Amino acid sequence: MEIIKSKDNKTIKYISKLIKSSKFRKEENSFVVEGVRMCEEALKNNAVIEYLVYSVSSFDKHTDIIKRLTDKAFSTYCVEDRIFCALSDTKTPQGVLCVVKTLDKQAHFDTIKKNGILLALDNIQDPTNLGTILRSADALGISGVILSSDCCDVYSPKVTRGSMGAIFRMPFYITKDLPAFIASFNEHGTSYACVLDDAATKISEVKFTAPVLSVIGNEGNGISFDVINACNKKLYIPMYNNAESLNAAVAASIIMWEMSK
Amino acid sequence: MEIIKSKDNKTIKYISKLIKSSKFRKEENSFVVEGVRMCEEALKNNAVIEYLVYSVSSFDKHTDIIKRLTDKAFSTYCVEDRIFCALSDTKTPQGVLCVVKTLDKQAHFDTIKKNGILLALDNIQDPTNLGTILRSADALGISGVILSSDCCDVYSPKVTRGSMGAIFRMPFYITKDLPAFIASFNEHGTSYACVLDDAATKISEVKFTAPVLSVIGNEGNGISFDVINACNKKLYIPMYNNAESLNAAVAASIIMWEMSK
Repeated sequence: MEIIKSKDNKTIKYISKLIKSSKFRKEENSFVVEGVRMCEEALKNNAVIEYLVYSVSSFDKHTDIIKRLTDKAFSTYCVEDRIFCALSDTKTPQGVLCVVKTLDKQAHFDTIKKNGILLALDNIQDPTNLGTILRSADALGISGVILSSDCCDVYSPKVTRGSMGAIFRMPFYITKDLPAFIASFNEHGTSYACVLDDAATKISEVKFTAPVLSVIGNEGNGISFDVINACNKKLYIPMYNNAESLNAAVAASIIMWEMSK
Repeated sequence: MEIIKSKDNKTIKYISKLIKSSKFRKEENSFVVEGVRMCEEALKNNAVIEYLVYSVSSFDKHTDIIKRLTDKAFSTYCVEDRIFCALSDTKTPQGVLCVVKTLDKQAHFDTIKKNGILLALDNIQDPTNLGTILRSADALGISGVILSSDCCDVYSPKVTRGSMGAIFRMPFYITKDLPAFIASFNEHGTSYACVLDDAATKISEVKFTAPVLSVIGNEGNGISFDVINACNKKLYIPMYNNAESLNAAVAASIIMWEMSK
């Protein structure tokens, strides 16, 4: 196999743009996952792997996974270490990355068990929070995550890495109209808006029964007015010490924990 | 007041070093908090403010807090905007920062209610996690947080910012010998090691009664052998989907939630 030695190579430039630009990811319906663990998750979960890229020196260390990825990927490229380092989103790259097709939204929607336990996210902006929320949702057995379309890009490197592979395992669905989604959910389930308002019901007093959906809002501004109004009920997590709020990923995780246990 | 116009100014260099170097913070027993909110917390919680630094253009926007901080700070410096930007740890600085004395460890230890609900952290490495854990501990009414001395620096800008001011409100104590601390705690309370081992007791089956302490371990390796052995009991958070673990801040928050409710 020829080794790519120039950062001006067309494929390298294409991948670099996919890593950096959310707009480009949307246009191409592709995203990049990096590192042995994430590539392994892509394989395990039957993701469509367009390109495999590995660095010269990674081959000896990660021979097995590189071989298995090569079998699955449409195209495979070996690049000089310095090219990989320049491309990589991490400080100490492992030398393996894949370009993966984004999951078809409709198909992903169909995998969500609508009679289960859902989490909806309204305008979550921090990719670290979004990654952590997906990771928690996966670990806590949530049926699916609904994202308003103004959430940060679920396919950004920070989100996928923070999700620890949950991006591949967790059914999620991006909706342009979260209030309408909730209204339709209310026909057979109960929806809760998580608010910072002690006039709402304390979460410890709520008896969650599926189908159930809880909404977590934006880090600074909480849930938007229309989304709160679409929900059947409001709940809050009691807090001490005049703390204004919990981190959004922590609040989401406590709610998922209470919904799922 | 004279306006500092050079980044080679002695005070500017001193503060820059405090922001960047954990070692220097330890030597000086001082740290830096930035932004209106954090400086307000320093004031509210009677922190010892050595220096106040604000940028020329921030004065009109934040006159009130700058005046109140000036009253409290030993020295106040006004600096050109570009100097503040170069100094700042954030992308869009508000133009206000304080150099604050670290909290005296023994005095802080004395503020911890040893008969309450404690969280111990064994070698937590990610400053974002540590900041979030302090924020959650504060919001969930935890009595105190014990840190092993190999945790990341609690006075780093990422931790203090992530704590949303909890660094000032939350009693915490750094110990060189966490197993000994736990052994001494066991004389009047019950200690739990949070492990990834489903042979341990499920957290939902534990009835927490104060004095109680739970330990959360390192992001990659969990709790060290000596610390697990020092604890009375082991508990685990049940997980689905073969997820290997929750994020450390999420796991800590779920445990604090269960201990405190």
